[in-house]
Amino acid sequence: MKLVTFSTGDGDRPGVVDAEREVVRDLSAVLPAGTGVLDLVEGWAGYADAVGRAARGEAGAPGHPLGAVVLRAPIPVPRRNVFCVGKNYRDHVVEFGRSGYDSPDRSEDMPEHPVVFSKATTAVTGPFDDVDPHPGVTSELDYEAELGVIIGVGGRGIAREDAHRHVWGYTIVNDVTARDLQRSHKQWLIGKSLDTHCPMGPYAVTADEVVDVTALVVESRVNGEPRQSAPVKDLIFDIPELIAVISAGITLQPGDVIATGTPAGVGIGFDPPRFLVAGDVVEVAITGLGAQRNRIARRGDA
Amino acid sequence: MKLVTFSTGDGDRPGVVDAEREVVRDLSAVLPAGTGVLDLVEGWAGYADAVGRAARGEAGAPGHPLGAVVLRAPIPVPRRNVFCVGKNYRDHVVEFGRSGYDSPDRSEDMPEHPVVFSKATTAVTGPFDDVDPHPGVTSELDYEAELGVIIGVGGRGIAREDAHRHVWGYTIVNDVTARDLQRSHKQWLIGKSLDTHCPMGPYAVTADEVVDVTALVVESRVNGEPRQSAPVKDLIFDIPELIAVISAGITLQPGDVIATGTPAGVGIGFDPPRFLVAGDVVEVAITGLGAQRNRIARRGDA
Repeated sequence: MKLVTFSTGDGDRPGVVDAEREVVRDLSAVLPAGTGVLDLVEGWAGYADAVGRAARGEAGAPGHPLGAVVLRAPIPVPRRNVFCVGKNYRDHVVEFGRSGYDSPDRSEDMPEHPVVFSKATTAVTGPFDDVDPHPGVTSELDYEAELGVIIGVGGRGIAREDAHRHVWGYTIVNDVTARDLQRSHKQWLIGKSLDTHCPMGPYAVTADEVVDVTALVVESRVNGEPRQSAPVKDLIFDIPELIAVISAGITLQPGDVIATGTPAGVGIGFDPPRFLVAGDVVEVAITGLGAQRNRIARRGDA
Repeated sequence: MKLVTFSTGDGDRPGVVDAEREVVRDLSAVLPAGTGVLDLVEGWAGYADAVGRAARGEAGAPGHPLGAVVLRAPIPVPRRNVFCVGKNYRDHVVEFGRSGYDSPDRSEDMPEHPVVFSKATTAVTGPFDDVDPHPGVTSELDYEAELGVIIGVGGRGIAREDAHRHVWGYTIVNDVTARDLQRSHKQWLIGKSLDTHCPMGPYAVTADEVVDVTALVVESRVNGEPRQSAPVKDLIFDIPELIAVISAGITLQPGDVIATGTPAGVGIGFDPPRFLVAGDVVEVAITGLGAQRNRIARRGDA
């Protein structure tokens, strides 16, 4: 199933998408008031049947044409920062090392352990919202197309072989990055967390819709020009490994999002770098998970 | 005023401490049900009078002897990860650079920009709780005594000179660190975020109780032996600067905690390093903000 958070102008509601009919079913009509996608993920065992019936148009949940609603990030306000993994595709490690932006490392060597940082919750924005270029704060704006894993069942000390039981599903994350700030502050939180720099969605897709997550292809385009394209099987540290490593000492919680890393083809992979500028349109798509399309806002737009 | 979150065995409640009488007044008796310290901080303008009356014993809030309650972290579940600043006292920058743990940097040079990272929410624990040493996950456990700034009024693009208006108050944070993980994962999130590795409190102290925050002295002891002691005026990047830099592109929110960095004297400042082991007791104190005392749990304790 494909869950969404949507608005028709009077607040955010949870919905489930009937992709064939291009309809979003309003789950707020059939769920307790105030239930959001985060609650659905956390209590999925108790909600799955009702959401499934709504998706099939059987539950009396009113439908809106997909094109008539505003899609927000599926989890518009995460419970905590988004976990992110850096340097997790080989070709990207090389381009990042060469670029000189991985200060102070500047190495093309593959990481021996996952490089994990976070994006602040306030960076999260919708899959079709404008991205604020923050003039005066950064002048080196870049994109990073990523598969986001959504945790369903929390836990600590999760073994590789049990990891799949903790995955609720998947979404798309654009790990938008201010490269100058990423470099100058050494730790990446600030350069990764500017407001609107985490477009998420359009859908939170249940794991049962994804037959083989390693076969999904992560792609991005800028102004229609293909920039990134790689299958998830190219990850250096795969999804079970990431869940095992993070949860070794950190209790994962339902609704946690882990952005798994970006393939080669980001702006600093070019020489000279090709940074995003106002008016540019970035599209990120993953097989079966839909596509985002975010414009870099012009002054006064955002 | 000194706010606390406390328990007498039947759930967490907000309280205000009458330090003279060593009494905590139960604010749950005079506030709407479910109001926590985070709500008080966010809506402080509307709550301050009532909390003040309760603190003076005028509001009918029942009192408990401080020694008879369990003090939790004042904000037991932050709205998002704790912002933390690394390498923000000169002597600590030198000891950290020399230690070899600041991989891949290993530099004793002062940072040109604040080094900002985060601790996951699940790391937060109470001021007198046991710290889990996570055997099998880390073998290099270290302490970092820090002043935590609690944001009251959120905002973006906060100027240095306006920063004080956004500070609700202060608390103590022990930025407990797994040095081996901090080094091996390059970005510090994992090494800084193991469960129970963020003792906070005992109090959230309103800014009006602190005449000159730069005069406060941050101290730590291990098993009674003094380890760290430095005034807040020794910060390389002071509190107004940290708020200005972080908020330049990231909207700060009420209840955000910024741990401002640790002085020299941590375990890796010694040669050979003096890591924490099961049974050790770490005390962190800051002038006027009280003191924490956390034991490193023995196997099976935590």
